[in-house]
Amino acid sequence: MKGRSLSVTALPGVPIVAPGDDLCRVVIDAVDAAEMVLQNGDVVVLAQKIVSKAEGRGVMLADVTPSPAAFKLAATTGKDPRLVELILSETDEVVRVRPNLIIVRHRLGLVLANAGIDQSNVGAEEGAQALLLPVDPDASAAQLRAALHEATGRTVAVLIIDSLGRAWRMGTTGTAIGVAGLPALLDLRGQPDLNGRKLESSELGLADEIAAAASLMMGQAAEGTPIVVVRGLEYTADGSTARTLLRPREMDLFP
Amino acid sequence: MKGRSLSVTALPGVPIVAPGDDLCRVVIDAVDAAEMVLQNGDVVVLAQKIVSKAEGRGVMLADVTPSPAAFKLAATTGKDPRLVELILSETDEVVRVRPNLIIVRHRLGLVLANAGIDQSNVGAEEGAQALLLPVDPDASAAQLRAALHEATGRTVAVLIIDSLGRAWRMGTTGTAIGVAGLPALLDLRGQPDLNGRKLESSELGLADEIAAAASLMMGQAAEGTPIVVVRGLEYTADGSTARTLLRPREMDLFP
Repeated sequence: MKGRSLSVTALPGVPIVAPGDDLCRVVIDAVDAAEMVLQNGDVVVLAQKIVSKAEGRGVMLADVTPSPAAFKLAATTGKDPRLVELILSETDEVVRVRPNLIIVRHRLGLVLANAGIDQSNVGAEEGAQALLLPVDPDASAAQLRAALHEATGRTVAVLIIDSLGRAWRMGTTGTAIGVAGLPALLDLRGQPDLNGRKLESSELGLADEIAAAASLMMGQAAEGTPIVVVRGLEYTADGSTARTLLRPREMDLFP
Repeated sequence: MKGRSLSVTALPGVPIVAPGDDLCRVVIDAVDAAEMVLQNGDVVVLAQKIVSKAEGRGVMLADVTPSPAAFKLAATTGKDPRLVELILSETDEVVRVRPNLIIVRHRLGLVLANAGIDQSNVGAEEGAQALLLPVDPDASAAQLRAALHEATGRTVAVLIIDSLGRAWRMGTTGTAIGVAGLPALLDLRGQPDLNGRKLESSELGLADEIAAAASLMMGQAAEGTPIVVVRGLEYTADGSTARTLLRPREMDLFP
């Protein structure tokens, strides 16, 4: 076959992760179980949930005491006041409120529903839990990248992704919330096109496109394949992070 | 290797397409040139540009007479009044205006910059041209899907994609503007997760995730690989189109 190809592989048999688990070991074991060998340039993509769990970001709702503001917003939205308390604790600014929906600007700069707090797949048998986003997903990605290099000698990139909704469009798409080792944003401006004309506004959201590709193979539900390896991309690491993908507020057209 | 894999292959050697060219023939020749054979379930992804060119959607700017409204908006934005005229001719509603940027709700329902009108890679040597989106990308996709079935006996899905910007985030991502033969939106709600809990709000923008994956391999500039084959996805066609991905205006939080 002659075309240039990319492969997106979901690693099988990843175990349920517990707080304190070593994600580097989890990735290496999963790569082994898939009978793969990490190569330089591979992109290791992790679902946010597995990172949050390893980092102990699960919170028992029974342990949360809602503030008056949380009670008020819970009444407006019909949400559990304890969950709303957690949402507010992760939020810089509430952007929109609708029944059962709170869209916020997260302390990480992401605009997303319910501060990215997840109630599924979080050990429901032990009582209602909520799972917050990692404290610093860019740092988590960088740390895992360094650990993988240390353990395997390979230079890979690491993405941490979540499924986020979009303005104007239905459905979530995989989106990069932590990036290490690849350009989050690819600036193609100034590169001549087929007719020698300069491309006008081609900044490609590279990390988000990889996140979407990985999300295709993750399976949102019972399948449970939270680690994906993307192989075949050409890129040069530029030190950028997921924050590079945040549109500065003063440039945003839809505040 | 044991993991479940997806491949994303950019077909090499796709020629420059001219108005009236048969896209089914172009795809079949490109698949042959890649030494591939189409399989049932493959997703054939085409860049919007190649579809627009084949459908003769190029317009010579010299042939455009701007309206007074176009002159006015051109003055505000610093854009060519003839280009603005074309933008307005494709627009249901101007959403936001900034220097060198007009965000519109396109007649197809898409919210995008400059009505998706492209000035790069469009035969600049013959005078300034602009390339409009296909008249009906869903119909184009369905027609090509039927033609490919007729010619090859294979049942594939067809996506037509464009690189669109997003609210709050930097960079464009591949986005589906024409869909045939796969579920544009995958409704995972009600499916139990690993703990038997019901997932709450998991509608996956499947066609957009495939579009992003394909966009990774298309190359925006001189490489010129506007046709990509995505292989390895499991899906059941449900008759949905790219319109399925449009959030109904009354549900939109950011009008």
